[in-house]
Amino acid sequence: MKQMIIASTSTLHGSGYLNYLLEELMFFYKDTDSILFIPYARPGGISHDEYTEKAQEAFSEIEKKVKGIHEFDNPKEALKNAKGIFVGGGNTFVLVNQLYKNDLISTMQEVIHSGTPYLGTSAGSNICGLTINTTNDMPIVYPPSFKTLGIVPFNINPHYLDPDPSSKHMGETRETRIQEFHAFNSQPVVGLREGSWLEVNGDQVFLEGELNARIFEYNKAPYEVETGTNLSGLK
Amino acid sequence: MKQMIIASTSTLHGSGYLNYLLEELMFFYKDTDSILFIPYARPGGISHDEYTEKAQEAFSEIEKKVKGIHEFDNPKEALKNAKGIFVGGGNTFVLVNQLYKNDLISTMQEVIHSGTPYLGTSAGSNICGLTINTTNDMPIVYPPSFKTLGIVPFNINPHYLDPDPSSKHMGETRETRIQEFHAFNSQPVVGLREGSWLEVNGDQVFLEGELNARIFEYNKAPYEVETGTNLSGLK
Repeated sequence: MKQMIIASTSTLHGSGYLNYLLEELMFFYKDTDSILFIPYARPGGISHDEYTEKAQEAFSEIEKKVKGIHEFDNPKEALKNAKGIFVGGGNTFVLVNQLYKNDLISTMQEVIHSGTPYLGTSAGSNICGLTINTTNDMPIVYPPSFKTLGIVPFNINPHYLDPDPSSKHMGETRETRIQEFHAFNSQPVVGLREGSWLEVNGDQVFLEGELNARIFEYNKAPYEVETGTNLSGLK
Repeated sequence: MKQMIIASTSTLHGSGYLNYLLEELMFFYKDTDSILFIPYARPGGISHDEYTEKAQEAFSEIEKKVKGIHEFDNPKEALKNAKGIFVGGGNTFVLVNQLYKNDLISTMQEVIHSGTPYLGTSAGSNICGLTINTTNDMPIVYPPSFKTLGIVPFNINPHYLDPDPSSKHMGETRETRIQEFHAFNSQPVVGLREGSWLEVNGDQVFLEGELNARIFEYNKAPYEVETGTNLSGLK
């Protein structure tokens, strides 16, 4: 049975890395003290080692040992043997490119479907949806495809940001961008504000955290859903 | 001899479409009263016809007739016969995808090199650089390549935005994104603020408009250049 936390962000303003989620994670990873970390998204271009150290620091607070997937000779075997997985944020294109390069997409789908607890933040959440067509990241590398894990039957927009009515900047608002997405694609998009996450238990998907989320469905006006909402019907 | 205006944006806050550039464009397009418009970037998902009408409205003020490239049976011939070209903004991925679909990349390079005046705004400026790896747009479609015209030997970042020190949002700043780009790529990036443009005359590239631009070179601290700066040495 699938068990996932699909979080908008790793970090809330003024708080430490993963801090706001640690209590949740203690319960989520209760059956293992060892987490397989996928550092491929390399935020700020840092190395896999540096990023894994950062994850280890946070997980030390709940007494979990973190090992980076790059430390294994065979990353597929590492995934299959993992008792808990965490895919960190950074650049979604870099993450997806590396997953394809290492031919890990189908193995990740298998282990998630078989019930290995999966935590994703930001880029690590984007890949849980159907495609990365709704990432906010800069396309700094060209991946072989935008298709991703499709564990949830919609797209994610992490770090969802409401329009700033005082802005004089002429770049598109997030809502405009997602509406443009729907000129070319029909799957729903869940705009997850920082501090929100989706909790997946088997076929059930619930919105968690303190905030509302904004849902964009094809040919429908965007709407808000409250925390606690069951989003399992969204497809 | 190449003649180009590569503009950060089509529109300044509180002003009409292309308004701030019209005086410049009167001179730039002085040898023709007919402009070939490429509406492929479809801002907000609007149709090619709607977008062409919008361009026509602005160009009417300087007595130019606008025709959309989609109105021609043979878009390659339309490009070759054009006396002036304008590629409007919108979504860079949608624009690039359509250029590849219609096999127009090399024809555009030819006509620009042969001297047809070319105006690009936003997405239409992005494609003048080496790749679209530094676009701000959402990747709502998957183009066959991120490589673009390479008329200037660097990348463009239009709508360049300085970090907002009061922001509590944890998404990456523009500067962080471009630095991540340089973890994987080595060409320079010109961050063009709204209201700035590059003027290309043959091999000369000058920064125009009222504002500074921000230059990002591989393995160097980012720096500011003043309007009027000759950027021909940047590669």
